[in-house]
Amino acid sequence: MKFSPLVDELIHSLRCLPGVGPKSAQRMAFQLLERNRKPGLQLAETLAQAMSNVGHCKSCRTFTEEELCPICASNKRGNSATICVVETSADVLAVEAGGHFSGRYFVLLGHLSPLDGVGPEELGLSLLEDHLKSGDISELILATNPTVEGDATAHFIADMASRHNIKVSRIAHGVPVGGELEYVDSTTLALSFNGRVPI
Amino acid sequence: MKFSPLVDELIHSLRCLPGVGPKSAQRMAFQLLERNRKPGLQLAETLAQAMSNVGHCKSCRTFTEEELCPICASNKRGNSATICVVETSADVLAVEAGGHFSGRYFVLLGHLSPLDGVGPEELGLSLLEDHLKSGDISELILATNPTVEGDATAHFIADMASRHNIKVSRIAHGVPVGGELEYVDSTTLALSFNGRVPI
Ligand SMILES: [Zn+2]
Ligand SMILES: [Zn+2]
Repeated sequence: MKFSPLVDELIHSLRCLPGVGPKSAQRMAFQLLERNRKPGLQLAETLAQAMSNVGHCKSCRTFTEEELCPICASNKRGNSATICVVETSADVLAVEAGGHFSGRYFVLLGHLSPLDGVGPEELGLSLLEDHLKSGDISELILATNPTVEGDATAHFIADMASRHNIKVSRIAHGVPVGGELEYVDSTTLALSFNGRVPI
Repeated sequence: MKFSPLVDELIHSLRCLPGVGPKSAQRMAFQLLERNRKPGLQLAETLAQAMSNVGHCKSCRTFTEEELCPICASNKRGNSATICVVETSADVLAVEAGGHFSGRYFVLLGHLSPLDGVGPEELGLSLLEDHLKSGDISELILATNPTVEGDATAHFIADMASRHNIKVSRIAHGVPVGGELEYVDSTTLALSFNGRVPI
């Protein structure tokens, strides 16, 4: 018996949010109850709607409550001949924030991980293959993460693209601009040496 | 146009939570959508209920969805002759976590702050005075914060208690146990000198 059941339950429920421990859950609950009831109700409403209605774009698999996400639905980008393949919807946002890519995306919603039961079907690769077979696509840019699983996934998709004679490349990994050599991990450093370009 | 309207709105709504900036709101939204839909729906439900139904205990003013909070409703503590006065419901939890106080509480839900329009009425002091007049109370422990406003509030309530011949004290402020002198701020240090006890 810490508080009334409902307050206890609110504190407990808030912990489903990533990065929210017991202390911050309590702080959130009190602040909402003390002076944010209206935004709190609004959040409850939006959350319920989003959890129930947000699905995946039927062309690129990113999150959307429509059939097509805004990018796939747009005339210009939705018909682009270039697809950038990423692991998550958050990666889409990261690339969009860069502002240099103007093609469309394909979101795997994960990476190949046979031990966890994640194979080509779970990543929607037959849908991606449909795109490749359609004749509308000329280039595939692989932007999976530079991890063992991300590498394996990239190679698997690269093979698929080759079978359909689609040009395929992978984004460069290396020392970030502004990064200092001594603080870069050894894997990144190895990647940056392997990917060196003549000047 | 970052995402679909509903996903954008979810990210925006999550920012009503204290300490949640744009980056973490986005991370929360994606994690909920990716793999926490059921807890997310549960949170939406609890949040809506709490925002609508949690009120204040009619005896001590702490948050509760019942007429009386569990402490005031309990036979043992609800009839205690000692009341500890705190500023917020979170303070109740902090004192409870200590586990040494077994009386009841009175929650001011703030402190005297005339410039913000917070006077004795907003702090429920007439309700507190009813308790003092009832003859059931023998001691008042003031645990308002050691700030200018907390001090003023404590003095105001102490005067009220004196008028009703109720024993009144204020919790000690000073160097925390395990704290090191050199890292304690000067105000706390001053308080700890003023509050020195003979050994
Ligand atoms: Zn799409
Ligand atoms: Zn109460």
